[in-house]
Order: sequence, then structure tokens, then C-alpha cells
Amino acid sequence: MRSHIRTLLVSVLALAVSLVFGTLVLAQNDPLSSWNDGPTKEAVVAFVQQVTDRSSPQFVPPAERIATFDNDGTLWPSHPMYTQLAFALDRIKALAPKHPEWKTKQPFKAVLDNDLKALAAAGEKGMVELVMASHAGMSTAQFEAIVTDWLEKARHPRFKRRYTELAYQPMLEILAYLRENGFKTYIVSGGGVEFMRPMTEQVYGIPPEQVVGSTIETKYEVKDGQPVLMRLPKIDFIDDKAGKPVGINKFIGRRPIAAFGNSAGDRQMLEWTGAGSGSRLMMLVFHDDAEREYAYGPANGLPDTHFGTFPQALMDEAKKKGWVVISMKNDWKRIFSDK
Amino acid sequence: MRSHIRTLLVSVLALAVSLVFGTLVLAQNDPLSSWNDGPTKEAVVAFVQQVTDRSSPQFVPPAERIATFDNDGTLWPSHPMYTQLAFALDRIKALAPKHPEWKTKQPFKAVLDNDLKALAAAGEKGMVELVMASHAGMSTAQFEAIVTDWLEKARHPRFKRRYTELAYQPMLEILAYLRENGFKTYIVSGGGVEFMRPMTEQVYGIPPEQVVGSTIETKYEVKDGQPVLMRLPKIDFIDDKAGKPVGINKFIGRRPIAAFGNSAGDRQMLEWTGAGSGSRLMMLVFHDDAEREYAYGPANGLPDTHFGTFPQALMDEAKKKGWVVISMKNDWKRIFSDK
Repeated sequence: MRSHIRTLLVSVLALAVSLVFGTLVLAQNDPLSSWNDGPTKEAVVAFVQQVTDRSSPQFVPPAERIATFDNDGTLWPSHPMYTQLAFALDRIKALAPKHPEWKTKQPFKAVLDNDLKALAAAGEKGMVELVMASHAGMSTAQFEAIVTDWLEKARHPRFKRRYTELAYQPMLEILAYLRENGFKTYIVSGGGVEFMRPMTEQVYGIPPEQVVGSTIETKYEVKDGQPVLMRLPKIDFIDDKAGKPVGINKFIGRRPIAAFGNSAGDRQMLEWTGAGSGSRLMMLVFHDDAEREYAYGPANGLPDTHFGTFPQALMDEAKKKGWVVISMKNDWKRIFSDK
Repeated sequence: MRSHIRTLLVSVLALAVSLVFGTLVLAQNDPLSSWNDGPTKEAVVAFVQQVTDRSSPQFVPPAERIATFDNDGTLWPSHPMYTQLAFALDRIKALAPKHPEWKTKQPFKAVLDNDLKALAAAGEKGMVELVMASHAGMSTAQFEAIVTDWLEKARHPRFKRRYTELAYQPMLEILAYLRENGFKTYIVSGGGVEFMRPMTEQVYGIPPEQVVGSTIETKYEVKDGQPVLMRLPKIDFIDDKAGKPVGINKFIGRRPIAAFGNSAGDRQMLEWTGAGSGSRLMMLVFHDDAEREYAYGPANGLPDTHFGTFPQALMDEAKKKGWVVISMKNDWKRIFSDK
């Protein structure tokens, strides 16, 4: 009897081990393990299989497998405000002691008073003034050091952790899955190129030369015998909306076969991607998960947002053109790496 | 005696075979076989060995092995005029029937009359007018087709072959040698990005996303339901002189560790490259071979040229900073693939 029990115990243990091990292997084998099963996940897998299958009429040579990703709201949160705006506001506060005139001058006064209403009233012109005051007037090397330091110290107001720890886990899995299948992954963001480059390799596995974004003008100067690139208070290029296909053409020179966005700012990038021939994948991250992240926009029956607007017209175009809308709430098992 | 002769013949034959075979193997093993032995070739090999040797303090990780190449005069001829200027002049002539006003209007009249003196008198302003008239007003796809067609049909006036057949063989070998050693090779040229991209992959093995150059503005439009990028008659960015480090920073976002040029337009790119820490390679192709290609410039005791100017000050800076000057005449066994 004892030996019988022992045999039974061993069998149960063996079964348990094999189940646990089997599940682990399964999880390891699933490159999209943070995605719930369903049509959204299937769309990604089907597309990748099509374009990588040499016997498929939809086969695409590796060199042409370009995938472009918006950043804010697509790869990491854009709420309660764009991360770069949070950086700009922190910089204005840090620089304020050297600018006593800001105490009475808008939009700087609004920043120093934490007066979001006055800040909103300053509009786009005000935003440009804040960006110029916080992003220009130093060398590119100095700016990189400032951004790196800020990313290390700043914390997201709700999630209480570094912004660089808030990349969406399911999107990190798509990035890795595409690269494993011969894709070159690019960021194509309205954000500043030099604000993103210090972190994209570490956070997304995307090297600096694959980051397309907005730029300010820089000027080559020789200072004390050393060449530097100085950042000027002048906008060079805005990589948003109709600027995204322009940026893609200018920096990459190939049309993507896959594009990922989350707002009206990504519409033209998805249109441009979809207008090429052959198999294409266009996806929009839809923020409908107030509990784990954020929910907004008319398609949720909620007010829209300034930080990643998703109008009903975008939802309509997505449906009409076969763009896949990702429900954060329903399609994602987890939002971040650990929850 | 006969068998003696036969043995001798066999021996001689064996020796000949082994010599030929040995030479072939040697040639195959030498990635820079079109370079004469000497300090110039040695500088390239020593640099590559240093930065790729994991035990060397000068070791550079593959991701940071960026090499940038000017195009005109560095990878292919820039005489008797820049290839892109030859293209512009041909386009003006092709478009002339639709522009009867050009018969009397400079700088177009000069082009139609083949009046190089009047053309030179039109100066930079005239050049911009010619570029705008020949490079704008169509979609990016249309322009690519026009350039591809021209490159197929046009012939170099002296060498009587396609421009794409005139890449410098020794430079093709450097490009391949660097790539085999984990480098990413980029073009950084004053020429137009979209004029170069149709040919860089085929000619240099450099994909479109690794071509940095001058750009004109483009505009995203939806025409008959199809998105297009229209080329506007407005200069966006000039990637020359102090613009080269700016372009490198904007498009690549890393400082090169090797840079190759041939004229004053490359000076700042070489300075920027050389100002980084660690081992660096800066090279200038010097045109001193009138017989096989062209010779010009004060350092040759000859008049300078507008198409790739090489002033004495550049030669002085090269000597002072340890930039390697490549003598086409002395360092290159052949200029093109076959002579």
C-alpha cells in the first residue's frame, strides 16, 4: 500500500511537473503571450506568416519588411499628458531661477503656478514657446544628458515609476516578434527625435537611426576647438498627421508594410502604409481601459482628449479600410511588464 | 629522356597552376585587391582591425560602427559636372517643349543653347531655379521613375557608359570590407536623397534608409482616393559643408567612426567624425589622375574646380589632423571595375 501511494504520488508529481513545464514551454513558444486569443492577435500572426512565407504570393523580401510605430499612446502612455510635455514643464521649473521674468510672463507663469487652465489657454503658440525655452540653447550632447538624467529621476504621476518602465508589454512583444521575422522596426512619432533617442534602444530595442520624429534646427559650430551641434529655438519639422508620410519618405525612403498608431495623428501614416500593394497590417491601439490605464474618446462614449485624440471618424475609417483596432481592455492580458 | 621531359613539363605545369591558384586565393583573400600596397591601404586595415578586436582598448561594438561616405567625387565621378546637374540639364531639355518661355528666359535659355558661360553666370540662384523646374511638381513615385529611366539611358560624356557603371572599384571594396566587419555604411551627400536612392542599393549595396542627402519639401495629398507625396519647388535641407554633421545627427543620431569625402564640402563631416573619442578613420579621395579619371586643384598645382573643390587649406587641415589623403594615381590599381 505504501509503495502504491508512493507510485501514485510520483505519478501525480510527474504529471504536475509535465503540466507546469508544458505550460512554460507553451508560453515561451508564444511570442505574443500577453495577448488574449482572438481576431486581433490572429491578425498579427496571419500577416507575419503571409509576408514571410516564401511560397506565398504575399511574400515580402526581408529588406522591405518595414514596420513603423507611433510612440505616445502606442508604445507608452500619453496620459495624463505627453511625457515630453511633462519633461518641458519640469525643465521650465528647473530653469526658472535664471529667468525671473517668467514669474509674470505667460505661458511660463502658468507652468510655475501649476495653472493648467492658463496653460491650456496659451494654446499651440504657448506650447511652442515652452518647448523652445526648454529644448533649445544647448548642444545636442548637453540635451542628451539632460533628457537621460530626467528619464532617470522623473516618475509618472499615477503609476509612480519611471516613464521608461511603462512601455506596453504587448507592444514590446509585437516589436520583438516582427524583428524575429526579419522586420526593421521604426518609431515614427510627433515627439522630438532627440527626446526619444536616449531611451529607445533600451526600452524598445530600436536604435537611434530608426527613430523618426519632430526636429528643431541645429547649427554646426566650433567652440574652443571642439565641433558641437547647437540646438536652435526654431522648429525644423513636425512629424505628425500629414507630416508622418513625409517623415517616413524623408528618413526611411521605403513605404512601410505595417504601421501602428493610436490617434488621429497617425491617420495619414496608416493610409500611406495601406496604399501600397500586397499584404499590409494597420493597427490602432484604442484606450478603453480606465482601470489598468486610461479610457477616453467618443468611441467609448467618453470625452475626447488632447493627448492622443481618437475621433469617431477615425474609428469609421478603420472599419472601412480593415485597420485592426486593438482594445487594451479586451485584447491585452497585461498592460505593463508586470500587470 | 622523353619521360624526363614529361616529368619536367608536369612539374612546370604544376608550379604554374599552383602559382595562378595561389595568386587567385591571395586576391580573393584580399578584400582591398584594387589598392596598391602602402600606407593608405594599411591605414584602412589597421583601423578596422583595431575597432573590431575585442581585446583592443579601441574596440567598438558593432552597433556603433557607423561609416559615412560622400557620393560625388568620393564614390563616383563629379566631373565634368555633378551627375545630378547633368540630369537636371537633360530634364530641362526634355521639358522645354511644354515651356516655350524658356527659349528667352535665363537660366533655361543657357541650358537649351548649351551655353555653359551663361549657365555659370546664372550662379547659385540659377542652379536652384533649374533644380526646382526639373525636380519638383511631380509625385515621389513619378520622380523615382524619371530618375531610374534617366540612369538607364544617360551616358557619361567621357567614359561613354552609364553613370551607375562608374563607381570607383577601390571604394566599393572599402564599402564591402567595412560591412563584412560589422559596419553600417551610409551615404552623406550634398546630392538629392531621392536622386540617389533609386541606384544606391544596386551600385553601392547601400539601402535607401541609409542615404542622407539634400531634400526638397514634399506634401501629402490624396488624389483620386490615392495618397501621394508631391514634390514642392522648395528646398527643405542642404546636406553640404556644415549641413553634413547636421544631417548625420538628424538622420542617423550617432557620430560616425569613419568618414570619407573628397572636397571642402566634406570638411565638417570629417571634423565631426574625428572629434569623437577612440579610434577614427578620416579619408579624402584626391583627384590627381588625369589619365584614368581627372586631376584638379591647387594641391596638384592645377586650377580648382566647382565640382568638388579641394583647396590647399583642406590639404593642410588633413595633414594637421591625420586625415588620410588617397591618391587616385598612386593608391588605386584600377579606378573602375575593369580599368
